[in-house]
Amino acid sequence: MPRPIGIFDSGLGGLTVVRAVRRRLPAEPIVYFGDTARVPYGIKSSRTVTRFAAEACAFLCRHDPKFLVAACNTASATALPDLADRFDVPLCGVIEPGAEAAARTYGGRPIGVIATEATVASGAYCRAIHRLAPDAEVIQKACPLLVPIVEEGRTGADPIVRAVLAEYLEPLVRAGVGTVVLGCTHYPLLVDAIAACLGPEVTLIDSAETVAERVAGRLAADGLLAPEAEARGPVQFFVSDNPDRFREVGGRFLGEPAEPVTLVPSEEVAAAADATVEKAP
Amino acid sequence: MPRPIGIFDSGLGGLTVVRAVRRRLPAEPIVYFGDTARVPYGIKSSRTVTRFAAEACAFLCRHDPKFLVAACNTASATALPDLADRFDVPLCGVIEPGAEAAARTYGGRPIGVIATEATVASGAYCRAIHRLAPDAEVIQKACPLLVPIVEEGRTGADPIVRAVLAEYLEPLVRAGVGTVVLGCTHYPLLVDAIAACLGPEVTLIDSAETVAERVAGRLAADGLLAPEAEARGPVQFFVSDNPDRFREVGGRFLGEPAEPVTLVPSEEVAAAADATVEKAP
Repeated sequence: MPRPIGIFDSGLGGLTVVRAVRRRLPAEPIVYFGDTARVPYGIKSSRTVTRFAAEACAFLCRHDPKFLVAACNTASATALPDLADRFDVPLCGVIEPGAEAAARTYGGRPIGVIATEATVASGAYCRAIHRLAPDAEVIQKACPLLVPIVEEGRTGADPIVRAVLAEYLEPLVRAGVGTVVLGCTHYPLLVDAIAACLGPEVTLIDSAETVAERVAGRLAADGLLAPEAEARGPVQFFVSDNPDRFREVGGRFLGEPAEPVTLVPSEEVAAAADATVEKAP
Repeated sequence: MPRPIGIFDSGLGGLTVVRAVRRRLPAEPIVYFGDTARVPYGIKSSRTVTRFAAEACAFLCRHDPKFLVAACNTASATALPDLADRFDVPLCGVIEPGAEAAARTYGGRPIGVIATEATVASGAYCRAIHRLAPDAEVIQKACPLLVPIVEEGRTGADPIVRAVLAEYLEPLVRAGVGTVVLGCTHYPLLVDAIAACLGPEVTLIDSAETVAERVAGRLAADGLLAPEAEARGPVQFFVSDNPDRFREVGGRFLGEPAEPVTLVPSEEVAAAADATVEKAP
């Protein structure tokens, strides 16, 4: 079997990345790990998030991945340099690709970033955008209710969702943003309501799509793409808790049933990290 | 120093219990543990919640507590029998006292319970209420947005909070409930808005208050009350992550600054459990 792409997230959100990768690279096998025993990462310290992310990567490395994706904005914002040091597999997060796409659209109007508390506090999007568009004004807005709103199954048709979005997006609209980055993998499920709230003049950057593009480009450059095939590549899901909830809620993120799902208790995930032979210095 | 009361929660919510216990028993020393690295418990499986709760109790036992309180509805709903088996310290959760208070008010109208997804799914309030009021109709309603709403600092004056409460409470109002139990330690921060939404005919049960009453009664019966004193007993807070956020947000729950806070990484909390000499069978 060709080597899989390994994708991890704190929970369900990374399934929007799986969906985008599968749409662009249907033949690729994928192994996904969702750390549902310790979700969410967005309110935790960078030290803790880095440890959890390293454990997730060590677990995925048991499947000999050819590429790793941190499909979690919080982990991408805080843990990526540490993961790149520690693992001998090419990897990317979700922030750089989204920030690059935002910088490419930059035409003088401010760039908005909506994300979790931890991603905003890290300032990672601002830094990544400023590397490419040093003059851009970046306006960040933490939107802590959007993850639980999506997980509860609410959609953009819900008046509560519309009221919450109007409140969160008001400072971006007032500042006249030209582009808004969806800086959390849950937000693509509300993309239509967000677009309606911002108006047709604003370009939305969906980081799931930009990551899929990045993965495809890197695999092609390294000659690592799976051979084209009629059948879609297999996907395996692993979670550290509550596989039933993952199956039930995950389908909405993935656009198809999230199966098969295997439970891997977090003790076992931690043990994978202990057993990892780290990259030679 | 007199032995402390040990109180744990998945995060901040248990501080409403600390506040109520301190109001009723000001001389008691208190040691609090908030498992902020793994919060929330409300969307996790009972196996995982039981393991986390046992680790929290083992950690608190290092301080030789005379009484343990599971100030977390999810842990109370799923882990209490296991904790009672495992630890040789008297303990209570937050569900029994709230359920008893609700059963005492029962006069024929249905009893409503609002709580997290996991507490509702456990059915623990229904069972506890039915033990005392077997004929009572109990109507449960999971309210997943209320915890993040409270943690974000929103109050009952916020129109989004009022819209969310109106939606969640509508089935209880329609059923003509006579009593509603606040089945989550975050909800007392919204008590006025909840009361306004339910109307003056409905009795609200605040489980923080009923737990404080229970602790006072048990300590008095066992002759374990701290001697009356002019000074208030000392309180120590321990968290498994992000002490800064705990300090900042915790004050709103406690009604005074949440200090001093000490960080205890979750590896160390897990190690406390490994080192615990369990109760002889």
